[in-house]
Amino acid sequence: MVWTKKDLLGLEDLSKEEIELLLTTAESFKEVSTREIKKVPALRGKTVVNLFYEPSTRTRVSFEIAAKRLSADVINIMAETSSVKKGETLIDTGTNIQALKTDIIVVRHNCSGAAAMLARHLDISVVNAGDGWHEHPTQALLDILTLKERLGRIKGLNVVIVGDIAHSRVARSNIWGLTKLGAQVTLCAPSMLIPPAIEKLGVRVIDDLGTALKCADAVNVLRMQFERDEKSAFPSRMEYFRNFGITKERLSKAKKDIVVMHPGPLNRGVEISSDIADGGNSVILEQVTNGIAARMAVLFLIAQARDISAGKTNEFKEQENIN
Amino acid sequence: MVWTKKDLLGLEDLSKEEIELLLTTAESFKEVSTREIKKVPALRGKTVVNLFYEPSTRTRVSFEIAAKRLSADVINIMAETSSVKKGETLIDTGTNIQALKTDIIVVRHNCSGAAAMLARHLDISVVNAGDGWHEHPTQALLDILTLKERLGRIKGLNVVIVGDIAHSRVARSNIWGLTKLGAQVTLCAPSMLIPPAIEKLGVRVIDDLGTALKCADAVNVLRMQFERDEKSAFPSRMEYFRNFGITKERLSKAKKDIVVMHPGPLNRGVEISSDIADGGNSVILEQVTNGIAARMAVLFLIAQARDISAGKTNEFKEQENIN
Amino acid sequence: MVWTKKDLLGLEDLSKEEIELLLTTAESFKEVSTREIKKVPALRGKTVVNLFYEPSTRTRVSFEIAAKRLSADVINIMAETSSVKKGETLIDTGTNIQALKTDIIVVRHNCSGAAAMLARHLDISVVNAGDGWHEHPTQALLDILTLKERLGRIKGLNVVIVGDIAHSRVARSNIWGLTKLGAQVTLCAPSMLIPPAIEKLGVRVIDDLGTALKCADAVNVLRMQFERDEKSAFPSRMEYFRNFGITKERLSKAKKDIVVMHPGPLNRGVEISSDIADGGNSVILEQVTNGIAARMAVLFLIAQARDISAGKTNEFKEQENIN
Repeated sequence: MVWTKKDLLGLEDLSKEEIELLLTTAESFKEVSTREIKKVPALRGKTVVNLFYEPSTRTRVSFEIAAKRLSADVINIMAETSSVKKGETLIDTGTNIQALKTDIIVVRHNCSGAAAMLARHLDISVVNAGDGWHEHPTQALLDILTLKERLGRIKGLNVVIVGDIAHSRVARSNIWGLTKLGAQVTLCAPSMLIPPAIEKLGVRVIDDLGTALKCADAVNVLRMQFERDEKSAFPSRMEYFRNFGITKERLSKAKKDIVVMHPGPLNRGVEISSDIADGGNSVILEQVTNGIAARMAVLFLIAQARDISAGKTNEFKEQENIN
Repeated sequence: MVWTKKDLLGLEDLSKEEIELLLTTAESFKEVSTREIKKVPALRGKTVVNLFYEPSTRTRVSFEIAAKRLSADVINIMAETSSVKKGETLIDTGTNIQALKTDIIVVRHNCSGAAAMLARHLDISVVNAGDGWHEHPTQALLDILTLKERLGRIKGLNVVIVGDIAHSRVARSNIWGLTKLGAQVTLCAPSMLIPPAIEKLGVRVIDDLGTALKCADAVNVLRMQFERDEKSAFPSRMEYFRNFGITKERLSKAKKDIVVMHPGPLNRGVEISSDIADGGNSVILEQVTNGIAARMAVLFLIAQARDISAGKTNEFKEQENIN
Repeated sequence: MVWTKKDLLGLEDLSKEEIELLLTTAESFKEVSTREIKKVPALRGKTVVNLFYEPSTRTRVSFEIAAKRLSADVINIMAETSSVKKGETLIDTGTNIQALKTDIIVVRHNCSGAAAMLARHLDISVVNAGDGWHEHPTQALLDILTLKERLGRIKGLNVVIVGDIAHSRVARSNIWGLTKLGAQVTLCAPSMLIPPAIEKLGVRVIDDLGTALKCADAVNVLRMQFERDEKSAFPSRMEYFRNFGITKERLSKAKKDIVVMHPGPLNRGVEISSDIADGGNSVILEQVTNGIAARMAVLFLIAQARDISAGKTNEFKEQENIN
């Protein structure tokens, strides 16, 4: 299996084999971050641009560290302070970044499809770091990587995703990735936060959290995005916590070693209680650690595919890349 | 010809030979950005500070990439979030940056003369990245580099600059550079946007765009800066487009291979129509690409002049610099 | 003497010997910033995170340059645009940064004790870059380094600190550092800006500036932070300048070679007159230069202590580090 795609736009577009290649490549990169000198020369002299139209310190920093550990040069563009303000179109911004002879744009945008639109118009690579309610593929990759690390497999797992499914690109990417790898996905949320006809994606919907958790191997707890302007769309924080919060009491009725995931940042006492977030079932910080490896894998495979398709001899990389 | 100036403040201060040296050095740097490893060690261990008092993603990113491809360390200071807010003077900010043993300050400031004032007070180098309505020398260098690349020469060319000349540092730097190299410059704009007595700089002023374009080899289309507070100073967007917008129809009466330039970001449908911006006459993206090479040349020559004047032996550079 | 502490939280926690080790290490790093290639490989492959909850260009840039001259990768997080806004706790932010396999967090926070709280919860190192009114240890280190450089010693010196002592972490760190090294510290300010019972720290309080300066070897002039909301707490700017401003006239009654320090940014004509700030007694810019060396020393010793405690063989460093 060799990676040949120019871009990573979502897990929907990938085959099972491509997802597995990303995961095994990520596993091999984990070791780099444990070295004294946490750096490999694989992307030396390449330029990675973080183009963020939504503020996101977590994802931006994770990609920035991943790129720097691959020895790439990283340029951060926060769209609030950029020429976007001056009315430039997304495509013009993209073609300009391409004209700077950069290699990979990592884009976060509030519109679903923004990354795909950029990718269609550009010869350089585009990595989707979250587009509207559509996909956030590297988040799902790190979630799946963490799950696989903890439980040894994905196939046959029963994974519950709890929270605002309707507005969650994290949920959507997880659904695509997990079902392709053979897991059973169950969604659980107040009915107004479940998108219509979501069962077509091959998932189950269960309203009651207790029932949903009963035979779950893992639960992925989505962040309630109270900073968005959809406030009226779901019950109050207290009410949400009472019905859908992941608490010790609730988990006492689930499998003993159920894996608890959360993409962060945490709303402690809203979607998850502190004892669970910090407890032995939680893999929340392992997710963060795995985010570096997952993003290194994405940047590495995409850069490699670009070099191969450009017919560049790659002796330097063959000898040195991961080692 | 050897570069000896500590600073680059504007093209007005440069001789024809100095501008030509910048251009040929830029040409030699273009190749670096086409390599697999887009990096030369010329400025390794040097510190370049981007000091921006006006938001400008394009220019900042271009300088940042140029400096990084020369292996310099780059520090970005956006003055909105800086100690400037705390009432520090520009000179104090500059002397402080110098005391950090940095090498080059790239400064963008809303006051004409700000870069020159800094340069007078500092021993380290200052590169003007745009000062008020005064000069934006690296923009003019990349414009001229692109023109030369497309048409093979500058001498004898007929270049029309269209737009808000009065408030344009891009226009002013282009006028200095082009006339020194022997081009004929024609300015075209609503009369209220032409500064008084501008003909003294050796340029022609023609009110009517059709007449101006008739024997033009190139047209440099300035951005209408509607985000500035001078709104009342010129006609409406629609009216501007009707009279001064560069469109297919208008260019049909110009030379067939007229070169169309724009410093970006584009106001599509205001100063330029989309078919022209994206068409075969446009060199807009080549300008962006050449911006990297032009800025690498400026940073390289200035750093080299500093090292020579400091009497430092430079064996490392002599052997490796561009190669 | 070997550095063994994981963190640098304040000078209060350090022994005289530890402060001296920081100073001599800083002295040895000064030379790096005078080289043509201002870089040593000591922290190559390490990740330093600047986590700033208060805007501070000066301190952030100084740490960023120090880390880059040690070859570390630097990540800047400005908390205004970060997930902090999304309600994440400081500890969660810290554990997340740690999970990214970073090495050192440099933290600036408006709450006293924030750095210490982070340090307690994390295995990675924390450097306090200013916490509330508590401590700003690297500022005091660079002050003391500069004083020692100018006067040859610290022991027995008579150092006056003038200004808003009550709200100054700079004052507090200087008091700890200077008294531990055997200097006599005198505080001078309007009485409302002197914290109660401050004499317990082993300092003198003198209301009248003339008296205080009479036998001073050095005066450290604090910045009046008019941008804070404590406006009513002290007299007007004019009144402050008249009574506590450091002027030529006032210094004419002090020792001829009295050393004048200021942490910057300057309020010229408020706490200090321009002729003094720019005159021969002032070491203000030397302080800025020494800030790089002091911060290189802190980052270096802390990283080294981490590697030693991790039992990592360090041949690479032993051979190359400072040289």
